[in-house]
Amino acid sequence: MALSFSQACHDSVAGLRNSTRGVPVTSRARSASLRVCAAAAEGTATIIDGKMTAAAIRKEIATELAELKAKTSKVPGLAVVLVGNRKDSETYVRSKKKSCAEVGIESFGTELSDQATEEEILKVVADYNANPAVNGILVQLPLPKGINEQRVLDAISLEKDVDGFSPENIGQLAMRGRTPRFVPCTPKGCIELLERYNVPIAGKNAVVVGRSNIVGLPAALLLQNRDATVTIVHSRTKDAQKICADADIVIAALGKAEFMTGDWIKPGAAVIDVGINAVDDKTSPKGYKLVGDVNYKEASAKANWITPVPGGVGPMTICMLLKNTLEGFKQQNGL
Amino acid sequence: MALSFSQACHDSVAGLRNSTRGVPVTSRARSASLRVCAAAAEGTATIIDGKMTAAAIRKEIATELAELKAKTSKVPGLAVVLVGNRKDSETYVRSKKKSCAEVGIESFGTELSDQATEEEILKVVADYNANPAVNGILVQLPLPKGINEQRVLDAISLEKDVDGFSPENIGQLAMRGRTPRFVPCTPKGCIELLERYNVPIAGKNAVVVGRSNIVGLPAALLLQNRDATVTIVHSRTKDAQKICADADIVIAALGKAEFMTGDWIKPGAAVIDVGINAVDDKTSPKGYKLVGDVNYKEASAKANWITPVPGGVGPMTICMLLKNTLEGFKQQNGL
Repeated sequence: MALSFSQACHDSVAGLRNSTRGVPVTSRARSASLRVCAAAAEGTATIIDGKMTAAAIRKEIATELAELKAKTSKVPGLAVVLVGNRKDSETYVRSKKKSCAEVGIESFGTELSDQATEEEILKVVADYNANPAVNGILVQLPLPKGINEQRVLDAISLEKDVDGFSPENIGQLAMRGRTPRFVPCTPKGCIELLERYNVPIAGKNAVVVGRSNIVGLPAALLLQNRDATVTIVHSRTKDAQKICADADIVIAALGKAEFMTGDWIKPGAAVIDVGINAVDDKTSPKGYKLVGDVNYKEASAKANWITPVPGGVGPMTICMLLKNTLEGFKQQNGL
Repeated sequence: MALSFSQACHDSVAGLRNSTRGVPVTSRARSASLRVCAAAAEGTATIIDGKMTAAAIRKEIATELAELKAKTSKVPGLAVVLVGNRKDSETYVRSKKKSCAEVGIESFGTELSDQATEEEILKVVADYNANPAVNGILVQLPLPKGINEQRVLDAISLEKDVDGFSPENIGQLAMRGRTPRFVPCTPKGCIELLERYNVPIAGKNAVVVGRSNIVGLPAALLLQNRDATVTIVHSRTKDAQKICADADIVIAALGKAEFMTGDWIKPGAAVIDVGINAVDDKTSPKGYKLVGDVNYKEASAKANWITPVPGGVGPMTICMLLKNTLEGFKQQNGL
């Protein structure tokens, strides 16, 4: 049972519950201390601790937000639209609201039944577009069958599209000399982890495994913007293992449990594992455990840096959503 | 004296003057005959003949256009806006008009002095946006100093932006499941050459050298759309030569005369050379000759397919502009 990328995006709540006990990393200069305290690990790799980093970033957001509130008497607002009653979607939406509350972002939410028409959903989006207290709008996917997802997503005004998945925004991300309004949350979280752990990117060979619109593609574009030499590996790639084994940075986002074994990893590489896959585990009360796309044990013996699953990229995704909402607030208020 | 990519784009007129004598390749099935007649060449490579291919495509365009004219009593229109009196720009604009006439596209043109204000240029663009006889609009670059090029380009309506350089269009090109309105002309010409010469792309390792918005980036996205495994090599890349020497397909767009020597080329590779560089040549009456970014003599001894310079990618660019104008005409008229 593997979660799809679209489910994983925004939705990886692993670790969020304990997130407030993270160390207060208030600037990138402190990332060294993060690295030190995360170092004593399996194999030789520094564990890139997404849970702790996300907690630290939430504190940074809360601090900035409090300052802006003192100055403007306003707070950012995030609206989440949920259609239908999928259990997983409900859980994700709850997590988003909880995270918003934690940093001081006002939550707006609309829940529609799975019988809602496309026009009703579009009306909700249009109302949030027009509401100045709402700085970011998120429509929880998947939408019920029969609803044209692309039409709904395209209805979100670009200024409030904190997901950053619109073609215009992806184009801005791809093009040199242009700046996207919002960087999609999961790939933004990957880069944030690399940067906070001082992993060199410029001039390095980076391989992104998976070419989805929401993770692989934007992750590759972000690495390229930072002067890495980027290759996207996908299902049609020949010699994928060989290409990965040459990479200084690997971002794994293919959605196959522990698919990338140790021989995919170059000694000294940085490994960012976006995968969240549930595999049977009789020793767990739930009967399953979550693993990444990388065989953690083998990879951590070769890599210099590695993200665990859970507790790596997952906790960063909602955190980056909060950050995008704050950025939207600042853009929309000229701050 | 190297021409920049932006100058090379649309503007490579090499070979156009003799273009009407090309063989009539009216379908891709005929590309085999093209290959045969172009094969007896330096080294072992099949020469990818852009001049002949472009001539064949112009005939295809003319045929389709005549059919559409018979059906609708309308013809496509392309508007070119020229500001100032740069000699090279004037030459390019003349070539575009000549090519339009050859296939039956109506040319519209506005020439403004280099004293024209931004508002005057925007007014011209707005008028063409509103003119239903104009299906494509092109603003010849560079614009005079003091004019905000991005603002002018962004004013062209997306439906008529036959250059295809808008972020929205590039985003559509990048994203899986989306379709751009227009594919930028030079990279579109590169892919057209590969496809007409039956060069396998899916599953192949492709390297694009250069990451400009108008050639390298869209070329990489197009190759990726066709299931190649793509790496973009750029000025910050380490081991660029080694990476290229592993590539089944190389698109060279770095703008350095004969920079890529034979040891950059994998035996059996396909080499598409976008570079157009003028180098001193005392044996030529002009005192210079045009060469590509690839050392043709060395590369053609190793490659299976190679484009010459001039007569390779160059003639394809205006040809793809004509094709985009025809596509715009069809889109805008629901044909």
